[in-house]
Amino acid sequence: MTQVTKDIMLFSGRSNPKLAADIAAILNLKLREITTKTFANGEIYARYKESVRGADLFIIQSVASYPGGSVNDALMELLIMVDAAKRASAHSITAVITNFGYSRQDKKSAAREPITGKLVADMLAVSGVDRVITIDLHQGQIQGFFDIPVNHMTALPIFANYFNDIGLTDVCVVSPDVGRAKAAKKLADLLKGDLAIMHKSRPAHNEAEITNVIGKVRGRTCIINDDIIDTAGSIASGISALEAQGAGDIYVCATHALFSGPAYERLNNANVKSIVVGDTVPVPPEHQNDKIKVVSVAPLLAQAINSVFNNTSVSELFDPEFAI
Amino acid sequence: MTQVTKDIMLFSGRSNPKLAADIAAILNLKLREITTKTFANGEIYARYKESVRGADLFIIQSVASYPGGSVNDALMELLIMVDAAKRASAHSITAVITNFGYSRQDKKSAAREPITGKLVADMLAVSGVDRVITIDLHQGQIQGFFDIPVNHMTALPIFANYFNDIGLTDVCVVSPDVGRAKAAKKLADLLKGDLAIMHKSRPAHNEAEITNVIGKVRGRTCIINDDIIDTAGSIASGISALEAQGAGDIYVCATHALFSGPAYERLNNANVKSIVVGDTVPVPPEHQNDKIKVVSVAPLLAQAINSVFNNTSVSELFDPEFAI
Amino acid sequence: MTQVTKDIMLFSGRSNPKLAADIAAILNLKLREITTKTFANGEIYARYKESVRGADLFIIQSVASYPGGSVNDALMELLIMVDAAKRASAHSITAVITNFGYSRQDKKSAAREPITGKLVADMLAVSGVDRVITIDLHQGQIQGFFDIPVNHMTALPIFANYFNDIGLTDVCVVSPDVGRAKAAKKLADLLKGDLAIMHKSRPAHNEAEITNVIGKVRGRTCIINDDIIDTAGSIASGISALEAQGAGDIYVCATHALFSGPAYERLNNANVKSIVVGDTVPVPPEHQNDKIKVVSVAPLLAQAINSVFNNTSVSELFDPEFAI
Amino acid sequence: MTQVTKDIMLFSGRSNPKLAADIAAILNLKLREITTKTFANGEIYARYKESVRGADLFIIQSVASYPGGSVNDALMELLIMVDAAKRASAHSITAVITNFGYSRQDKKSAAREPITGKLVADMLAVSGVDRVITIDLHQGQIQGFFDIPVNHMTALPIFANYFNDIGLTDVCVVSPDVGRAKAAKKLADLLKGDLAIMHKSRPAHNEAEITNVIGKVRGRTCIINDDIIDTAGSIASGISALEAQGAGDIYVCATHALFSGPAYERLNNANVKSIVVGDTVPVPPEHQNDKIKVVSVAPLLAQAINSVFNNTSVSELFDPEFAI
Amino acid sequence: MTQVTKDIMLFSGRSNPKLAADIAAILNLKLREITTKTFANGEIYARYKESVRGADLFIIQSVASYPGGSVNDALMELLIMVDAAKRASAHSITAVITNFGYSRQDKKSAAREPITGKLVADMLAVSGVDRVITIDLHQGQIQGFFDIPVNHMTALPIFANYFNDIGLTDVCVVSPDVGRAKAAKKLADLLKGDLAIMHKSRPAHNEAEITNVIGKVRGRTCIINDDIIDTAGSIASGISALEAQGAGDIYVCATHALFSGPAYERLNNANVKSIVVGDTVPVPPEHQNDKIKVVSVAPLLAQAINSVFNNTSVSELFDPEFAI
Amino acid sequence: MTQVTKDIMLFSGRSNPKLAADIAAILNLKLREITTKTFANGEIYARYKESVRGADLFIIQSVASYPGGSVNDALMELLIMVDAAKRASAHSITAVITNFGYSRQDKKSAAREPITGKLVADMLAVSGVDRVITIDLHQGQIQGFFDIPVNHMTALPIFANYFNDIGLTDVCVVSPDVGRAKAAKKLADLLKGDLAIMHKSRPAHNEAEITNVIGKVRGRTCIINDDIIDTAGSIASGISALEAQGAGDIYVCATHALFSGPAYERLNNANVKSIVVGDTVPVPPEHQNDKIKVVSVAPLLAQAINSVFNNTSVSELFDPEFAI
Repeated sequence: MTQVTKDIMLFSGRSNPKLAADIAAILNLKLREITTKTFANGEIYARYKESVRGADLFIIQSVASYPGGSVNDALMELLIMVDAAKRASAHSITAVITNFGYSRQDKKSAAREPITGKLVADMLAVSGVDRVITIDLHQGQIQGFFDIPVNHMTALPIFANYFNDIGLTDVCVVSPDVGRAKAAKKLADLLKGDLAIMHKSRPAHNEAEITNVIGKVRGRTCIINDDIIDTAGSIASGISALEAQGAGDIYVCATHALFSGPAYERLNNANVKSIVVGDTVPVPPEHQNDKIKVVSVAPLLAQAINSVFNNTSVSELFDPEFAI
Repeated sequence: MTQVTKDIMLFSGRSNPKLAADIAAILNLKLREITTKTFANGEIYARYKESVRGADLFIIQSVASYPGGSVNDALMELLIMVDAAKRASAHSITAVITNFGYSRQDKKSAAREPITGKLVADMLAVSGVDRVITIDLHQGQIQGFFDIPVNHMTALPIFANYFNDIGLTDVCVVSPDVGRAKAAKKLADLLKGDLAIMHKSRPAHNEAEITNVIGKVRGRTCIINDDIIDTAGSIASGISALEAQGAGDIYVCATHALFSGPAYERLNNANVKSIVVGDTVPVPPEHQNDKIKVVSVAPLLAQAINSVFNNTSVSELFDPEFAI
Repeated sequence: MTQVTKDIMLFSGRSNPKLAADIAAILNLKLREITTKTFANGEIYARYKESVRGADLFIIQSVASYPGGSVNDALMELLIMVDAAKRASAHSITAVITNFGYSRQDKKSAAREPITGKLVADMLAVSGVDRVITIDLHQGQIQGFFDIPVNHMTALPIFANYFNDIGLTDVCVVSPDVGRAKAAKKLADLLKGDLAIMHKSRPAHNEAEITNVIGKVRGRTCIINDDIIDTAGSIASGISALEAQGAGDIYVCATHALFSGPAYERLNNANVKSIVVGDTVPVPPEHQNDKIKVVSVAPLLAQAINSVFNNTSVSELFDPEFAI
Repeated sequence: MTQVTKDIMLFSGRSNPKLAADIAAILNLKLREITTKTFANGEIYARYKESVRGADLFIIQSVASYPGGSVNDALMELLIMVDAAKRASAHSITAVITNFGYSRQDKKSAAREPITGKLVADMLAVSGVDRVITIDLHQGQIQGFFDIPVNHMTALPIFANYFNDIGLTDVCVVSPDVGRAKAAKKLADLLKGDLAIMHKSRPAHNEAEITNVIGKVRGRTCIINDDIIDTAGSIASGISALEAQGAGDIYVCATHALFSGPAYERLNNANVKSIVVGDTVPVPPEHQNDKIKVVSVAPLLAQAINSVFNNTSVSELFDPEFAI
Repeated sequence: MTQVTKDIMLFSGRSNPKLAADIAAILNLKLREITTKTFANGEIYARYKESVRGADLFIIQSVASYPGGSVNDALMELLIMVDAAKRASAHSITAVITNFGYSRQDKKSAAREPITGKLVADMLAVSGVDRVITIDLHQGQIQGFFDIPVNHMTALPIFANYFNDIGLTDVCVVSPDVGRAKAAKKLADLLKGDLAIMHKSRPAHNEAEITNVIGKVRGRTCIINDDIIDTAGSIASGISALEAQGAGDIYVCATHALFSGPAYERLNNANVKSIVVGDTVPVPPEHQNDKIKVVSVAPLLAQAINSVFNNTSVSELFDPEFAI
Repeated sequence: MTQVTKDIMLFSGRSNPKLAADIAAILNLKLREITTKTFANGEIYARYKESVRGADLFIIQSVASYPGGSVNDALMELLIMVDAAKRASAHSITAVITNFGYSRQDKKSAAREPITGKLVADMLAVSGVDRVITIDLHQGQIQGFFDIPVNHMTALPIFANYFNDIGLTDVCVVSPDVGRAKAAKKLADLLKGDLAIMHKSRPAHNEAEITNVIGKVRGRTCIINDDIIDTAGSIASGISALEAQGAGDIYVCATHALFSGPAYERLNNANVKSIVVGDTVPVPPEHQNDKIKVVSVAPLLAQAINSVFNNTSVSELFDPEFAI
């Protein structure tokens, strides 16, 4: 009869090493070493530098494009790291997916479309993942794409704290479209503010689409909240619409800062006080400025990892009301 | 070398036989015979009365409580019919689930909750279902709970036709909560109307929750749209809120009329012109009256079944814009 | 390196809370708290009131109709509790199924029938159960419906003790039909008694079915043994047949007292000294009387749970001869 | 648009080629050619000699020891044939298992035993079998070990016809043990005969086990029925017990004639008029004599194969009452 | 009773459209239309432009980097196309993988490595692929990573024809390393030539690795054969080694021309008459010249597709000796 | 909160008990007791004699023919032992497969063949194996047939030590065919020797096949290395070919000594100094002599078992270079 012991080991893929390092630092752990590389032909290789046999692994990866590769490269790297860990007899493998790529393709909006979000979930499952920790999924229903435990965090309280700290008053949280209304409502409640919702319509067949705002925004401090800022197109048109309605100061907050294509240009041109984003996808330091602020989700994910490893409740981390 | 032929066979469970009969009539088919019974101890039994070997089966069932049993009884009956068909060598089994029970438990809203909608999907898969046809799921993401094809219909065009036919003007479609905003927006577009959204808040800790309305409703014809009317509590409070805001005529439409507990009482007491519901869950004839109107989804489901059997496109049934 | 510890947590569904409480009391444990409720529309909801992360859960449920719901409701509640536990990161989930509903539909007796017992096993597996503890399955082969460990207990020694304690002599154990002969033989061996078997036949096409008895019952103390008493029809006709053959005192024992439909009336009218049943399905106190005795299987299940948790052998609980 | 056609192809493993040939002859088909061989090291190899792409394959094999190999060799050969067919793109693969080996290990009778019957079912499923046709399983519950269709035939009517044809009267069908009582009862009903059941007991701890007979056998024509005759030990002691009780002529019938070890010697020494067995396991011609009669199940299996291929009902082959 | 018909539909991903078009042309079919695009954030989207319900789909994709994306992008696009086809009710989905990416990571060569080739196979299976057609896998064992049919073609006869046509004599086929010896042997047999094998060794710890040649190459026409040319490092050093050994004219042939990194420079600098490669991965026209020749595998894959659709034997396409 | 403990239990099947005992002795453990037997009909039965609940089981079996049964019997015994352990609630089950039967049928070399090596892997997985420890697979790719961890050892260093100890010089390691070149190269590197490769060819259609040798063997000490010696046909012809080429002393080494059919006769007649084999398949003592030497892999497997149980790295056992 031998006592059973366990070890926690944190590994990072290559798509968001800074967040991984920050999480490790909070947990007072070292990121463990792994060789990851991309061959000239684009294939990815990974090999753990020390034994992971019997350990509880947490693999931190943002499934999003990054300077070294595409979103698919980042996903494949994660899956390869999981496969290698499974075959090397890890006791458990938790994928800490800071940005869940393809989460917006979560249903068929038209016939003969894929549901790529489910495909990604199935790929994770077949590779050998035992548990997922993630944050601000496009829709909470993605939890149900898995039959393994999913710990779904939210950055909304972090944003609420941020805006409270800078002393905003008479706040109206604005959803950029009807699909995001539920989360905007939650942030409004956290800030004890009001709610407005934008939606697009086309007055007539050959006229341009316009952005409507329902709810009172005139003269008020408006915070547009979204899960993801991608090319920033809808955010930019939302800001314009709010301006047109006579809104007061305009802020934006979003968890996942993909900032693709014309995003920086659009955001720099927009009439907005501040754009507050998470670090689930790395924002290059040169793009962080007075207008674009990054707040870290590292403490949140560190607590989640700690709870999972030590079998304490993740739900205690937050007022359950705030879980999406 | 023998030519391969195929046969379509329609069967109905016991929870919504009228809709099944209506579908069969439209398809010019007979419902096939099956013995289904509930023993004194509550266990359900099913046996096909003729060979189903090699046939394409469509089993029509509302997974909702009905006079003969609970929602769980209806679900179990469906699963048992599928199991028997699988073991009797049916070529394919399509579950035509007119009301997808448990669809609102589609994510964890609080820690340590189930995701029963996924559990139901997994139970259907393990029983041997090859394909699902359903209508107005609480969230379209439920399609992604399956790895088999799901044909997801919507009754919104049927409601749009109904309201167009009765000549409503200056319409504002009202979402009863933030989560339903997307569908309400779609109905508003179909009716070339405007959009309003209700949400609840609590002014202070010890005060009662109030229903807020964002969007212009004063003096306009309002149509509250929901997927499900259950106990009708939120619909009733929504009607009151609209009244308080000075709305004009108020209508309600919803696909799934569960009408549980105090629903009829609440609806009869509400200041509403008409409540228009689908027949995905049977509404007893004695409860259908000037106020409660039932429109049938049978033509929609009949077309879907026909398309599946004959390999024509389901998406052509509708303007893809209306697919949720 | 951290020492790994484990916790046992007992939860009860709503179909047999007294047995669950009795088991917990024997184990000197508290039943843990869980919210379980049935909505007005019949859907069931469950949520654990405290963290189950990393714990070894034992969920005690009778899959049988009970005052609050049907057998299917009880089954669904169990599955939902399992789903929630799996998603809340329980270390292991053992379903303690005191009455395995649908166990009599364990094969196809006619073409185009389901094998619902297997369907239930597959549903349990897909929901996330790791192990099953159950008692007196209709056929031991149901163990093979699972690929997970099944600890299959039997109440026969409990009944043997009961009848020994009341000092019966010259006992003949009677199987109510040919399918139950094997278990009756085991009880006969435990009681060092003789064996008789009843079977039905129809003398001619238009005559009534009669119950035949093979074996010597005249003047002897007869104990009819069955796994389940459902509507008590076959038990009642068995008692009559024994009377007609001149049997002495007649007793009945059965593990699972479903007592559906006319069961109480039939048993009260039957010429029987005593009907001894287990508490795997609750018998309302008002129906327990001089004739209907309940013996508890709680000690048996408590020992099994203890053995599973502490990795001691379940088989040592009994002379292996008595395992069905 | 191309018409879809289908082809039936029958293949035989090496354990019962005569039955396979007889089935093919009845179906007016040729057995197709396949190379099967056993290497010097005991490994088995199979390769189809012509394309099976798109065809409906029926692979006929007795999973029992035969002159060329053990029961495990026969099983492995079947699995290898299935694997090769699957990888060669057969449209469907039906395993016609004339004797389902390991069917008696269908539950745990003692702790820490396997359920090898389920293991075999899982091995068949994982190899790629789409459907099973088999006959007189030890327990019908084995059907539930599969999630694919199982067509379970019975030879009981063949035996009933045989005994009717030879004009037996005043028949009592005798079950050799309590577990076989149900099938014996069925045969008794088919023959409009009576039923008796044997069971063993040990009068005292240090005395020999004796075989008891319950039911009236004195002076009557007795037919012992079993599914399998293996070493014939229990059949031989059953015959002796019937003799001791003054039975009239004694016959034996059993579907599967394994005739292992001392079986022939025991049967030749037994006081029995005739032992009637199926050809599901080949009985060498030199062992067929006045006492050991073989009746063929080929017509039965041929009809089943025909029904499966042509999508007619297998259940019409028999009075459903006779299905086990 | 309706006749069942079937339709073949060919679709191409974006990584090798020319080969797909060539295959379609040979089959006298049109490539069907599908929308495939990469969003600014790198996520891939696909939607079929017409109904695929009931059709047999063949999706042609090279899983290799191409001008529009990485190998992982190409793989993900294939998986997404499969997912969409499955959910759109295709009858069957065949992935025609002209270059099987990650095929060299087919085993663990060191501890704690992944087996990415198996991971890819599992991803294809979970996405819904029914069958794979591919060509010159790095090792034939990769077929066994699947439980679905894999039609594994080889381009060796195409290369043999090419070299025969240009009239080479006194040929020695050279394997660039010990792992490729088996295929080189096959090509040698096809060309009735001799065999040589190269392997690397390091004379002493601090000396450079050298390439050894075993077999007679002096003065003979040498053909180095490999499955993949990636960065062309080992090919270039092999050519040098052959030169050093006094080989006559040197040719190279390889099925998959990845030509990564310094490949073109190395090949252009090498003392080689001709490098003959397949078009399984597109070679840009500007890189095709007197030295680099492309031979097409389109006829081979077209025949395979035709055979699969029409249920004729793929093996007849080739002398089975040449199947790897 | 209870501390979790773990126990290691070693069990042996019947095909290689001596190796199992030797492993246990090295580990200072006792082989635990299990009843294993073969019934007269050839079916195998296993039952653990003590509780295995919660223990980490290592089941040692050679999947090869042995005096008591065929390779299929040995495989089935292993699977049955695994099934029983799984159902008896073992914590983990590691199959220590000293000789992986069917490993040479690892791909389709011709159309319509099985891939039996994968079938065996799937059978092991479905029976409940959690991990495999094995040695010198025919191809390392077989690791990828599994989705569970496979610890793949090699005996090459043992052979290298052996040959170093007897002081061989000027060594040339000879691969008996092109497929084995890679392993031969590894042994050559271990011995700092040279490499030669044999391959067969047929000079003309009606002439006999001849064995060619490439590489320099004249006058050198040659060691033919193979994974398996089966009937010894290719080894014997390889020895003859080396002789014909004027080789010096000839040695043979192989991990798995199947020694089927004419193997002993061929080896005894061969002009070879010594045949050195592992004990993964037992070589009867009467066949061990001056020519046939057995070296034990027990230390290797013992270390692997120890590492798995104690979560230390298996890869540290060897220079990773030597892992196949």
